[in-house]
Amino acid sequence: MQTVSEVGERRLIAMFTEAAASTDDDVVIGSGDDAAVFTAQGPVVVSTDTAVAGRHFRFDWSSPEQIGARAVVQSAADIAAMGGRLTGVTVSLGCPPETSVDRLLAVNSGIVDQTHAYRARVLGGDLVSAPTVVITVTSIGVLDDVAPVTLSGARSGEVLAVSGPLGGAAGGLAVLSAVEHGADPALVDRHPVALAAYRLPQPDLGAGPRAAAARATAMTDVSDGLVEELVTLAASSNVRLDVESALVPRVAGLDAVGEDLAVDPVRWALGGGEDHVLLAAFASGTVPADWTPIGVVSAGSGAFVDGEPVGSIRGWQSFTQT
Amino acid sequence: MQTVSEVGERRLIAMFTEAAASTDDDVVIGSGDDAAVFTAQGPVVVSTDTAVAGRHFRFDWSSPEQIGARAVVQSAADIAAMGGRLTGVTVSLGCPPETSVDRLLAVNSGIVDQTHAYRARVLGGDLVSAPTVVITVTSIGVLDDVAPVTLSGARSGEVLAVSGPLGGAAGGLAVLSAVEHGADPALVDRHPVALAAYRLPQPDLGAGPRAAAARATAMTDVSDGLVEELVTLAASSNVRLDVESALVPRVAGLDAVGEDLAVDPVRWALGGGEDHVLLAAFASGTVPADWTPIGVVSAGSGAFVDGEPVGSIRGWQSFTQT
Repeated sequence: MQTVSEVGERRLIAMFTEAAASTDDDVVIGSGDDAAVFTAQGPVVVSTDTAVAGRHFRFDWSSPEQIGARAVVQSAADIAAMGGRLTGVTVSLGCPPETSVDRLLAVNSGIVDQTHAYRARVLGGDLVSAPTVVITVTSIGVLDDVAPVTLSGARSGEVLAVSGPLGGAAGGLAVLSAVEHGADPALVDRHPVALAAYRLPQPDLGAGPRAAAARATAMTDVSDGLVEELVTLAASSNVRLDVESALVPRVAGLDAVGEDLAVDPVRWALGGGEDHVLLAAFASGTVPADWTPIGVVSAGSGAFVDGEPVGSIRGWQSFTQT
Repeated sequence: MQTVSEVGERRLIAMFTEAAASTDDDVVIGSGDDAAVFTAQGPVVVSTDTAVAGRHFRFDWSSPEQIGARAVVQSAADIAAMGGRLTGVTVSLGCPPETSVDRLLAVNSGIVDQTHAYRARVLGGDLVSAPTVVITVTSIGVLDDVAPVTLSGARSGEVLAVSGPLGGAAGGLAVLSAVEHGADPALVDRHPVALAAYRLPQPDLGAGPRAAAARATAMTDVSDGLVEELVTLAASSNVRLDVESALVPRVAGLDAVGEDLAVDPVRWALGGGEDHVLLAAFASGTVPADWTPIGVVSAGSGAFVDGEPVGSIRGWQSFTQT
C-alpha cells in the first residue's frame, strides 16, 4: 500500500487532473494549470463548504467515494438554494502524508463522479499536508434566466414547502452511533434507506432552479436541520414561520428506525441536518407539484412548530459524530 | 479571552459577514446567504489554495493578520498567473474550538484587508471545527480583454523573465528557523526585508494582466521555487529553458542574510518558494519594462541553470517549517 508521501504531491495532482479530464465547451482551461478559466453567461453563483474527518464524516462509517461525493453534494446544494445550476467545482484536499493513495484516489473519484452526475466539471484544486483529512469544495454555478433566491424575500401569506423528505441523515447517523455504543450491528442492514441518506444524501438539486422559475421568494438548503433553517429564514425575511410537524415528509423507513432506537422520528425530521433538501417560500397557489407544503409565512417574527417556538427543540439537531 | 466554541459558529459568521460588507456593484449578493452571486464580463478564472498551521505558517512566526493576508496572496497569485484580475474570494476557515476569537478575527481581518487591497471582495465562506487552523481561499477573477496565459505556450527563441525579486521568503524563513535552532535572535531585526517577504509576500499581481496584454506566451507564479516552476513550464510547453543564475533578481538584503547564515543566497533565489512573483516567456523584444529577463527558451526539453540540469539543485527548495 503506497502512501501519499511516497507518491508525492506532483504525481498525485497529475492523477487527479487525469481523473477530472474535461471536454466540456464551457471550460476553456481545466485542471492542471495555475487556475481554471471558464465562460459564464449571466450572473455567477459561488459557495464554499469544508468537511473534516472525525467531525463531518468517518472513514469507518462511509466509503471514501461516499465521503468525496457527499462533500460535493453539500457544497452544490448551496448553489441550488440560490436557484442556480452547478457548472464546476474546485477542490482542496488536505491529508496526513501517511494516508494511503488508494483512499485519497477513492475520495477524489467520489468527488469527480458526483460532480459529473451534476453535469458539472472539476475545475482545479490543491493538495496539502494536514493533520487529518479535510475536503473543501467550492461550487460555481449559473442562474439560467432566473433571479437569485435569497433568504430574505419571504412575505406574509406565503406557503412554506420542502423539496424532499427529511430526517434520513440524522436517522442513519443515529443507527451508526447506536451500534458503536453497543446496539445490534444488524440494525445497519435493517435500515438501508436511512443509512444511504446519511452516507450520501441525494437531494434533487434541480428543484432549486425549478423553484426559482416558479418565483420562490426565499430559499435555503437544510444543512443544519429544519428548525435551524426556519430560524435563519424567519430572521432574514423578518417574518413569522409556522410549520406543522405532521406535514414534514420523512424519509422512507424512518419511523421503523425510530421504533428500533426508541426515538420519535419527527425529531430527526425537524432537527436533523445534512439532508440538503431545499426549503422555500412560495406565493399561495404557486408551489411546484413535486414540493411538499409544510407551513405558512405570516407577519411577526420567529419560527414555530405546531404553534410552539422552536427554541425548545433547537437542541435536537446538535448531534455529534465523534 | 473568548474561544470560538464559546461564541458559536453563527455569531462568528455574522461577525465575518459584517467585516466583509461590500458595496461593490459587481456583487449582487454577498457574504451571508447560501451562496454569493456576482456578474462577470467574459471568461472567469478560478483557483483554490489551502494553508495549514504548522505546515504553511506558524502563529509564533507571523501575526494572524499576516497569515490571513498571505493565504489571499498565494491564491490570488494564481489568478494573476493566468493574466487575470482578482474580483472576489471565498474563504473556508477551520480551527480548533478552543481557538481564541481574537485570533480568528485577526486572521479574518488580514484576509479581508488583503482582498480589499486587491480591489476585490470577500464573497462568502465557511467556518468549521478542525484539529488545527486550516485556511482555504478560492480566488475568482476575470480576464480584461486578454487571452488566458497557460503553462504550455512557450516557444523556442523566446525570453524568460520574472516580475520581481526572489528568495526573500526562503531567506526570511531561514532566519526564523536558525533562531529557533539557537542563532542570535537579533538576526530577525537585522533582516527586515527578508522577514517581511516571508511573512507577507507582496508580489505586484498587476504584472500578470500587463504580461498578458504584452502577449506573454506562458506564465506561472513562483510558489514552489523557481527551478520547480522551470521544470513544470519546460514540460508543459515541451521546450528547453535556460536560466542564468546571475540574472535572477534577489530581494534587497538577501546577500547579507546569506552571509549571516553562511548560505549562498542564490540558492534561495533559485530554490526557495512562496515568493509568488510571476515567471513568464515573451517573444524577444516584448518583455515589459518592469520585468527582468533571466534566460531563454529553446528547442529541446528540461530546465537548466548556468548550463546544468536543475535536477541537482531541485532539492534546495524542500525546506520545511516545522
